[in-house]
Order: sequence, then structure tokens, then C-alpha cells
Amino acid sequence: MTSHEDKVRAINTYVGAFEAGDPDAVAALFADDATVEDPVGAEILRGVEAIRAFYTESMKTGAKLELLGPVRTVADYAVFPFAVKLNYTGKEQRIDVIDTFRFNTEGKIVEMRAFWGPDNTHGF
Amino acid sequence: MTSHEDKVRAINTYVGAFEAGDPDAVAALFADDATVEDPVGAEILRGVEAIRAFYTESMKTGAKLELLGPVRTVADYAVFPFAVKLNYTGKEQRIDVIDTFRFNTEGKIVEMRAFWGPDNTHGF
Repeated sequence: MTSHEDKVRAINTYVGAFEAGDPDAVAALFADDATVEDPVGAEILRGVEAIRAFYTESMKTGAKLELLGPVRTVADYAVFPFAVKLNYTGKEQRIDVIDTFRFNTEGKIVEMRAFWGPDNTHGF
Repeated sequence: MTSHEDKVRAINTYVGAFEAGDPDAVAALFADDATVEDPVGAEILRGVEAIRAFYTESMKTGAKLELLGPVRTVADYAVFPFAVKLNYTGKEQRIDVIDTFRFNTEGKIVEMRAFWGPDNTHGF
């Protein structure tokens, strides 16, 4: 099982990749057959190429991530609260999100689900 | 679908029930056939009577809940970061947790999963 420390390291890499605008660094965290559901209820993306394309588009908004508390880890999961901060329309925008990452035994993310909805967006 | 406001109300009732030490008030939030997995990876409790018994035991520790940021709501879910605060051994203890609640169309919780592990406990 992926350790707490390795899960936290993956999440710090994830946050740092947004800071750097580096979708390849995010894609490298995922297993080849991983899924991404962002937000929950949306179409589920399957496979690292679809995931890379998704993050490439996401980062075009200039989105930066701010962790808002400790990463909770248990079993195969890491779960963390954060804010997405955007200003691509010229004003401060913010989305409050909680992500669940499920890891495989190699430390790669196999499932990502992002919990946020219209009531969690501000400044749009 | 259960509204954002109704989900937030349920979570405030949940927190308030811990404050009051009232397991019946928590049990009333759950559907008859609901499941509780606390922490994730533990045996899944099934049915409101098992859930009532679980919360009755939990509350004997004097556990109080402190919300640590906005409730994220999307689709059938409400997800929220919080701390459990205990002092039943005479010292301050704290567990950082994120819960996911899934609601049915009647506004009852049908699935609760609590994400926390050994690295999220402090003062034990």
C-alpha cells in the first residue's frame, strides 16, 4: 500500500504542477488506465492520455491550487480540501473542492474524483 | 436531488447532535438501509439500527466535531472537512477527517464514508 508520505508527496507534486503549468507532471502521477471524474457526476475520463488533455485545458485557465488543511489518508486513499484560484477573466475567482485520490500498489493514482458544485464557486 | 441547503442543514444537524450527545438525532438523518464505513476500509455497517449503535458508542468518548471549511456539494454528495476532538483520556486528542455523505431523493443519507487514518490522529 502506498504510504502516507508517498501520498502526500504526490499531492504536493500535483499542486506544484499547477503552479508551474506542467500537465505532464500531473499526468505522470496517474496509472495508464486511471479515471478522472471532475466534478463528480460529469463524464468519467479514462486513460492517461485523456487525463493529460484534461489537465492541459484546465491549466490554460491559470488555475492555481491552495491546500486548505491536512491530507487525510486511509487504505488506498488520499483525500484533501483545497481551493482552485483563477483570475483569467480579470477578477478573483475561487472554487472550493475536495478531491479523493485512490492509489495502486505502485503509488500511481488510479481514480480521482473531484467534489465541487455551483454552490462552491465564488466570483464567477 | 437533495439541495445544497438541505445537505448543509443535515451536516449542521450531525455536528449539533455530537455536541448534544444525541445518537438518535444522527440516526434520523440516515435512510433505513444506509451504510457507514468509518474509517474507509473498516467493516461496512448496514442499516439504521447498526448505525445508531455505532454513534451511541462514538458519543461515549465525548467526541465533538468542528467543521473546517465549506461543505462541498455535487450530484448526490456532500463532502466536508472537520476535526473530531476528544479528551476522554484527560488530554486533548484530535482526528482530522473528511466525510462523504451520499443522499437519496428524500434527503436521507444512504452512504457515509469517513476518510482518516493513523497519520491523521494527534495526541493519542
